[in-house]
Amino acid sequence: MRSKDFPAVAALDLGSNSFHLLLVKPAHGELRVLEKLGEKVQLAAAIDDNRELSEAGMQKGLDCLRRFAGLLSGLPTGAVRVVGTSALRDARNRERFIRRAEAILGHPVEVISGREEARLIHLGVSHSLADFEGKRLVVDIGGGSSEFIIGQRFEALVCESLHMGCVGYSKRYFEGGKITPARYAQAYTAARLELMGIEHGLNRLGWQEVIGASGTIRSIGLACQAAGFGNGEVTTEGIAWLKQHILKLGSADKLDLDGVKPDRRCIFAGGLAIIEAIFDALKLTQMQRCEGALREGVLYDLLGRHQHEDVRERTLSAMLERAHSDMEQAARVEQQALAALEQVKESWQLTEPWQRELLGWAARVHEIGQVVAYYHYHKHGAYLIEHADLAGFSRQDQQMIALLVRSHRRRLDPERFEDFAGDSTTLLRLCVLLRFAILFHHSRGSQPMPKVQLKPAKNQLEVQFPAGWLAANPLTQADFEQEAKWLKRARFKLAVH
Amino acid sequence: MRSKDFPAVAALDLGSNSFHLLLVKPAHGELRVLEKLGEKVQLAAAIDDNRELSEAGMQKGLDCLRRFAGLLSGLPTGAVRVVGTSALRDARNRERFIRRAEAILGHPVEVISGREEARLIHLGVSHSLADFEGKRLVVDIGGGSSEFIIGQRFEALVCESLHMGCVGYSKRYFEGGKITPARYAQAYTAARLELMGIEHGLNRLGWQEVIGASGTIRSIGLACQAAGFGNGEVTTEGIAWLKQHILKLGSADKLDLDGVKPDRRCIFAGGLAIIEAIFDALKLTQMQRCEGALREGVLYDLLGRHQHEDVRERTLSAMLERAHSDMEQAARVEQQALAALEQVKESWQLTEPWQRELLGWAARVHEIGQVVAYYHYHKHGAYLIEHADLAGFSRQDQQMIALLVRSHRRRLDPERFEDFAGDSTTLLRLCVLLRFAILFHHSRGSQPMPKVQLKPAKNQLEVQFPAGWLAANPLTQADFEQEAKWLKRARFKLAVH
Repeated sequence: MRSKDFPAVAALDLGSNSFHLLLVKPAHGELRVLEKLGEKVQLAAAIDDNRELSEAGMQKGLDCLRRFAGLLSGLPTGAVRVVGTSALRDARNRERFIRRAEAILGHPVEVISGREEARLIHLGVSHSLADFEGKRLVVDIGGGSSEFIIGQRFEALVCESLHMGCVGYSKRYFEGGKITPARYAQAYTAARLELMGIEHGLNRLGWQEVIGASGTIRSIGLACQAAGFGNGEVTTEGIAWLKQHILKLGSADKLDLDGVKPDRRCIFAGGLAIIEAIFDALKLTQMQRCEGALREGVLYDLLGRHQHEDVRERTLSAMLERAHSDMEQAARVEQQALAALEQVKESWQLTEPWQRELLGWAARVHEIGQVVAYYHYHKHGAYLIEHADLAGFSRQDQQMIALLVRSHRRRLDPERFEDFAGDSTTLLRLCVLLRFAILFHHSRGSQPMPKVQLKPAKNQLEVQFPAGWLAANPLTQADFEQEAKWLKRARFKLAVH
Repeated sequence: MRSKDFPAVAALDLGSNSFHLLLVKPAHGELRVLEKLGEKVQLAAAIDDNRELSEAGMQKGLDCLRRFAGLLSGLPTGAVRVVGTSALRDARNRERFIRRAEAILGHPVEVISGREEARLIHLGVSHSLADFEGKRLVVDIGGGSSEFIIGQRFEALVCESLHMGCVGYSKRYFEGGKITPARYAQAYTAARLELMGIEHGLNRLGWQEVIGASGTIRSIGLACQAAGFGNGEVTTEGIAWLKQHILKLGSADKLDLDGVKPDRRCIFAGGLAIIEAIFDALKLTQMQRCEGALREGVLYDLLGRHQHEDVRERTLSAMLERAHSDMEQAARVEQQALAALEQVKESWQLTEPWQRELLGWAARVHEIGQVVAYYHYHKHGAYLIEHADLAGFSRQDQQMIALLVRSHRRRLDPERFEDFAGDSTTLLRLCVLLRFAILFHHSRGSQPMPKVQLKPAKNQLEVQFPAGWLAANPLTQADFEQEAKWLKRARFKLAVH
């Protein structure tokens, strides 16, 4: 289904402080908002020192999703994108939460990297503001992480994400809601040290405009305004006044500022220390606010995938180019793998679009690890794919591509697939197709290859070459004989005639 | 000591088939041979299916080294380079052999990667042959691996190494010395399949001259000559005749060819199948022999390090450039780390040249992992350094640099250092110096930094800033306070005044 045929599209942002839902109808390139919901779930506060998300914290999040789910009923696959950020990146037991969340929502939940989050925030902000020729610094202080982007028009030039957010900092430095000068100084200094890793790079690139997204910046801006500083933007003077004010109060409970909702009181001091550190590190004097942010970015990204340009295609092309990969071989293997998929997809239940996408991506990058070393390059490729900041891809995407790359040659270890619970059979089948396409083009285009017929069955694939072809090409025959042995160990039968 | 002051320099090549010693006197850029020894140790044949080198195999190798050791006595550190290749790359228990070999020789033993081996072979070959303007294909069939290089003058353009060699193949495909057409076909096909990974890249680059190095190629060339084909070079016709001949004989024991020494009989068939596969895959018709090879390359590389150009410097520069690293910051940190080393080296026993080199290298590349992702970049950097083909570096070099890169920020895990047995204290001290230099330049040049005094003691470092400086720079102070906490967990005391 093309996205213009979707009745509506929705983004859910499972943030560390709040969960948000944004339901829109795409119309002439704009998004007409049908529904906008937000709940303070404070997932980040429910993660203990062992990085385990507590059962109570999970329940609170799942209860919220149950309330959201009603609005999503009837939306087709591909029309809803659910992203998790810092708190879910941190929680070791995230898989448990994700499985339950997916069961409630009926749509996949993706955990995205900090840089991907930054890229999407910038996409949301740049679509929400008037067009601007110069460079724009965008800052988003979240519950568990903060994102920094320098962008120009719709393009993010630099994306950074730091592990500091208002929920985490308030919990660590303002325990029990007590606010003292020493505590504030600790929080401020911690933020300054975090920022040292990125401030140099940002300053070097420079910007002409500063935009703040996120609830924290909104509430600080409104508090500045209430205190008589500016019209809702955050300013140096406003920050200085707010800091004196909360130190005088001494406790988060007593926070009485207009613009700071009661449920924001307990995280205000952490957010203020962070924003003061940002102003000092980047030498800012004021920051305009913008309402558009992550969830808007998620929607524009989703629509872009269907309508004009898929950023993931660009990401992979750039990666292949940087690595000086053999693009012709990658294209040959991709084409062969997708053609093979067409022949078997009904029987093997590989008809969903994500399965085809995944196979194509893995085919494109299967040799990427050669940029590190030829020896064990499938392992290096898997490492790179799993850990790189790949714009547009979720962590799960990357893990699945990495699995296929890791398993594309030599021994095939079926245990690796078992980590992917419900998708293990699907992934193993895609892997068999990928391996087939690679072996088929083992000669890298130096030999004309015939048309072959594939006959799939459960845990079995029959490959039918034209009569006499294999006998005339003993190397290919030996290749497939070796492959049959490898697949057999993975309890899979390959028959070649 | 500069190498021109060395009384002599020596290379030991601990190959999979033979161990070789080459002792020379450098004179006016040439090498005057003082001694040349070789022994068939057949280390590769002593490795079992679990990749364990047997005790008997070790003893045979160590006995050989005891005979070699007498020739090395009195040679200073740096004048002897000992490299291990395929068999030692393969053996899981290589460390046990290496420790005992080092005790006998009194010089470090380095295990080098296949590509590094290829680079050194080419260096040896190109110095042994008349200068040649065009591109040269160099092939070396060893006991456990084969190397392929396309080079131009002294520069290797492409280096490849495949896990196939005459000892391994003879053991696997010609068990008991029996030679049959089916066995030969299996060995040939296995070699063709191995070659498919690299033949395309080599063919694409092309060459004008083909040179074979190694004892296998030498003995096949001599056997061709004895049979009336050519003057010692390997030719298609010679290979065809030899193949018919050994198939007729049916057994390695019966090999009676001039040029094939008795101790080469058992590995002749494996080598022949490999060379036939190479001729077919690369469409060769003849191959000239060259005596210079790995050990000559090792010596030229060793002398180059001291005399004109250290290839390791070029390797790291190229890597940093490809990764778009911040070279200025790398230089700042390197300078600071080396200056710190000067202050503490006597007390901490860090006066050996390799320790200074190691610290410098680690400082240069400590941010290299950012090319993968900023998040956990120290881990990515360690992965890249450990696994990349870094020309000029041994595996141990790479592992030690990787350890320092892995440990350059955040938590310092002393257990990681314990893997490096005798060097663990040295490495931990170098790591403390590296971390100090990085923290010192945390502001990346945006802040002028003062001169500091370092006072080392056992498991302790005192850093003395100018009076009042730290109080005026609370961020640096907080940085070092945090660092003191991290080091304390590694049972190391950092005091900053």
